[in-house]
Amino acid sequence: VSARAVPSYAVGALVDRLVGALGADCVVTDPAAIAPRLTEWRRLYTGTADVLVTPRTVDQVAAALAVAHDLGAPVTPQGGRTGLVGGGVPHGGVVLSLERLSRIRALDVMDATITVEAGVTLASAKAAAADQGMLLPLSIASEGDAMIGGVLSTNAGGTSALRYGSARALCLALEVVLADGRRLDLTGGLRKDNAGYDLKQLFIGSEGTLGVITAATLGLAPALRDVATALAGVADPTAAMAMFRALRDRVGPALTTFELMPRFGYALSLRHIGRADALEAAHPWYLLVELSSPVAGGGLDERLSDWLAAMLEDGLAADATLAANERQRADLWRLRDALSDAQGLAGASIKHDVSVPLSRIAGFIEETSAACTAALEGLRPCVFGHLGDGNLHFNLSQPEGMDRAAFLALWPRFNRIVHDRVIAAGGSIAAEHGVGIQKRDELLLARGPVAIGAMRAIKAALDPRGILNPGKVI
Amino acid sequence: VSARAVPSYAVGALVDRLVGALGADCVVTDPAAIAPRLTEWRRLYTGTADVLVTPRTVDQVAAALAVAHDLGAPVTPQGGRTGLVGGGVPHGGVVLSLERLSRIRALDVMDATITVEAGVTLASAKAAAADQGMLLPLSIASEGDAMIGGVLSTNAGGTSALRYGSARALCLALEVVLADGRRLDLTGGLRKDNAGYDLKQLFIGSEGTLGVITAATLGLAPALRDVATALAGVADPTAAMAMFRALRDRVGPALTTFELMPRFGYALSLRHIGRADALEAAHPWYLLVELSSPVAGGGLDERLSDWLAAMLEDGLAADATLAANERQRADLWRLRDALSDAQGLAGASIKHDVSVPLSRIAGFIEETSAACTAALEGLRPCVFGHLGDGNLHFNLSQPEGMDRAAFLALWPRFNRIVHDRVIAAGGSIAAEHGVGIQKRDELLLARGPVAIGAMRAIKAALDPRGILNPGKVI
Repeated sequence: VSARAVPSYAVGALVDRLVGALGADCVVTDPAAIAPRLTEWRRLYTGTADVLVTPRTVDQVAAALAVAHDLGAPVTPQGGRTGLVGGGVPHGGVVLSLERLSRIRALDVMDATITVEAGVTLASAKAAAADQGMLLPLSIASEGDAMIGGVLSTNAGGTSALRYGSARALCLALEVVLADGRRLDLTGGLRKDNAGYDLKQLFIGSEGTLGVITAATLGLAPALRDVATALAGVADPTAAMAMFRALRDRVGPALTTFELMPRFGYALSLRHIGRADALEAAHPWYLLVELSSPVAGGGLDERLSDWLAAMLEDGLAADATLAANERQRADLWRLRDALSDAQGLAGASIKHDVSVPLSRIAGFIEETSAACTAALEGLRPCVFGHLGDGNLHFNLSQPEGMDRAAFLALWPRFNRIVHDRVIAAGGSIAAEHGVGIQKRDELLLARGPVAIGAMRAIKAALDPRGILNPGKVI
Repeated sequence: VSARAVPSYAVGALVDRLVGALGADCVVTDPAAIAPRLTEWRRLYTGTADVLVTPRTVDQVAAALAVAHDLGAPVTPQGGRTGLVGGGVPHGGVVLSLERLSRIRALDVMDATITVEAGVTLASAKAAAADQGMLLPLSIASEGDAMIGGVLSTNAGGTSALRYGSARALCLALEVVLADGRRLDLTGGLRKDNAGYDLKQLFIGSEGTLGVITAATLGLAPALRDVATALAGVADPTAAMAMFRALRDRVGPALTTFELMPRFGYALSLRHIGRADALEAAHPWYLLVELSSPVAGGGLDERLSDWLAAMLEDGLAADATLAANERQRADLWRLRDALSDAQGLAGASIKHDVSVPLSRIAGFIEETSAACTAALEGLRPCVFGHLGDGNLHFNLSQPEGMDRAAFLALWPRFNRIVHDRVIAAGGSIAAEHGVGIQKRDELLLARGPVAIGAMRAIKAALDPRGILNPGKVI
C-alpha cells in the first residue's frame, strides 16, 4: 500500500465533520502522532492516513463511520496492532483506533460469560476472568497488547485452540458498527440462538472489512485446577503424530496443547534466553505437551508420565522431561514462547502460517522442507507450531551470510513451493494469522472463483462504498 | 403459505428443462407422489409445488438450481422432513429432495473427521463413526430420520450440545450449491482456517435460504468409555440451577447433559410408556443428568453419586436415582425422550423453543409460567428442555375439555406473553428449532431493523432472484 489513490473527498471536510461529530479531543491530525499508526511492528508494510480518530464510546465509533461513509473515506480499524499480515495498516483516510473502548462491561459466573469492549487487551480480559475463578481459554504470544476487537476480527488461535477452539468458538455475541454507522447490538450471550442468520460469524475473521467490532461476549470455562506439562525429543514428525494419536486416545479433553519445534528453532530459543538444554542430547524435533483440567486431583502428571513411558518404550519418543513444579513448567513454556523472537538471531525469515489435515501433516512437513532446501542452498527451515491443530508456522530462515533483502525478495517463490503443497494437501494458506495485505493475492489463488465471488458479493452487500479496511483480504 | 403467487415461469418449460438437465428418473410430476412433500409431519403447514426433483449427484443438484434460477422458479430443499417450524414446506416451484445424496464419502480417524452427503441420516453418520471407535457428538430425538443437510441448515442442538455445542460447532467444511447452480467446494476439514470469510457459517442455520448444502465434513470425538446417568427430583428451577453450578464446578467437561422436566410432562411420559415412577414420591421438577468421558475408569458414577449426596444434604435435591447399568440408563433416557410425544395425551400444545441466559432462567420460568396460566384458566404449562444450555421448550398444553382449534388460535397471544419476556431477558425466540414459517413474523419483532436489514442484504447478495426457500426465515 505504498501508492495511495487520489481521494474523492476533501480531507479538510473530513476532519471538520469528524471534529463536529466526535469533538476535537477524539480527532488527531498531527502527522507525528499519526506516524506510528502507519507502520506495523515488523515494518513490512507502511500506509498513509489523513486523520486518526480515537473514540471513547460506541456512539462515537458510529458517528465516525457515518461521516466516513457519507464522504467515501477509507476507514482502517486498529486495536493493539500486533497483527502479522498488515491487516491494520491504513490505506488513506481514517485510522479508527478502538483502544479507548476499554471497559469490561460485565462478567457473570453463572452464565460463564464476560462482555468486553474492543479495546480491552486479551490479557486484561483473562485477568478479569481469573479474578472470578474462571478461565478465558485463548492464549497467544501477543496477548498483553492484542485487543479483543482484533483478536476476534482475525479469529486468533494460539496454544490452547486444540482444546477450546479459536476465538470464534468462544464468541457468543458481538456488537458491531456497520460501514454506514448503524449499530448491530449484542444479544444475551446465549449458547443456543438460531434466530435468523448468525451475523456475528461474518465479522469474526473478516479483519475489519465488513464492520467494526466494538464489544463482544465471550464464553468462559472453569479455572484449571490440575495441569501437567512435558517436553519430549522425537526423531521425526511421523513419530510425533503417532504420539499425538496415542495421547488423544488416552486423555480425551484433558489434551490442551501439542506443539512442535525443530532442533534449529529450539537451539535458537536456548541461545535467545541463555539457557542450557532441557534434555541431555540433541533431538531432531521437540514436542511441548500440556494436559489440563478444571477438576483437582485428576492425576494428570501421572497420566502424562504413563504416556511418556509408553512412548519411550515404543521407541517413538527419544527422551522426555516432565515439569515437576510451576517454575519448571514456565521454563518449558519459555522455550516455545521465545521461538518467534529467537528466530531473529538467524537473520531474515520468510514466514507461512498454514494448516494441513492431521493425516497428511507429517508427509507435508518432510516433503515441503525438502523442496524448500532444494530451492536455495543453505536455507534453514524452522517449521514449528500447533501440531495438534494441524497448524504450522512454516518459516524459512535465510542462508548464513546471504543479503537480507535479496533473501526476502524470494518470498513469492517460496509461496509457490509452500502454498501450492498446502493446497494440494487440502490445507489452508491462512490458518490463524489472517490474510491482511500479505496473503491477499495468495487468497485469490487458494480459494477459487466461486468462493471469491461470494465473498465479494457479501462485501458489497455490507460495505457498498468499500470504505472498510480497503486493500485487505479481498 | 396457503395462497400461491402466480408463477412468472411456465410450469411446462420448468419440467422440460429439468428433465433435459437431470434425466426423467430424477423429475417427478405425479401429484400423488408430490403430495406427501407438501405437508410437514405435524400438519401445521401445507404448501404447493409444481415438481419434485430427486438428484443422485451434486452435479444434478447444480443443474436443477441453474434451471430454476434461470426461470425464477422457487426451490425448497428437503431432507428428512423432521423440522418443527415448517422450514421445508414448499412455496410453489421445485421441491428439491437431497435424500438420494446418501454417500458417506470419507472417515479418517487421525483427522477425526467424517465427510457425508446431505441425505445421510444423522443416525447413519453416527453409526459409521461408532464403527471406527469415534463419536459424532450430536443427539436429537429425530436422528433416525433427520438428514445431515437439514441438521446443518437448521443448526440442530439436542441433548449433548452442553458439552459439544450445536451442529455448527461440529462442522469443519461444507459443500454448497449456490442459487445460480455454482458450487462452493469443501475444504480439507481443518481445525484452523482463516483464508477469507468463513462462508460455511452463512449456510449453517439459514434453513436453505442462502444455498443448498450437498455435503459436509464434521469433526468427531473419541468414543465414550465411561458414562454416568441420574434422575433427581427437585423443588423448583432455582434449586435446579444451583445444582447445575455445583456440578459444573465439580466435573468440568465431563458434564454432557442437564435436562429439566416438569411433573406434568414427566407424568405424561410415565403414562405414555406405561411405567411406574422412577422415584418414590412425586416432585415438582425433575433433572436428567449425564456425565461422560472418552477415558475409561474415570469414576464418573462415583463423582455423580457424590454430587447427588451433597445436593440431598444441602436440601437442593429432594430424591435421586443413579442408573446402575445400561438398561436403567436407557429407562431414564426414555422418560425424557418420550416427553414430546407424550404431550399428545394432554391434547393440543402451543410450543415455544427459546433460550435465556442461565443467570435469569429460573426467574424466567416461574414468572412466564405464572403469566401464561393467568391468561387462560386451566392452561397446563409443560416447560422442559436443555436447562444447562439455557434452552427451554416452553410448551403450553390446552385446558382439559377446551376445543383444540380454539386453543391453537391463541398461539399469537401466547407468543406475546412468552417471547416478549424472552426478549426482555436477553434471550432468543428461536433457540434450536429454527425460524421457518412459524417464527418469521416474530423474528422481525425480535431482531430489530439493523439486523434484519443486514440479513436481507446478505440474502439479496447470495440469492438475487429470491428463489431459495421463499417464505422462510426473512
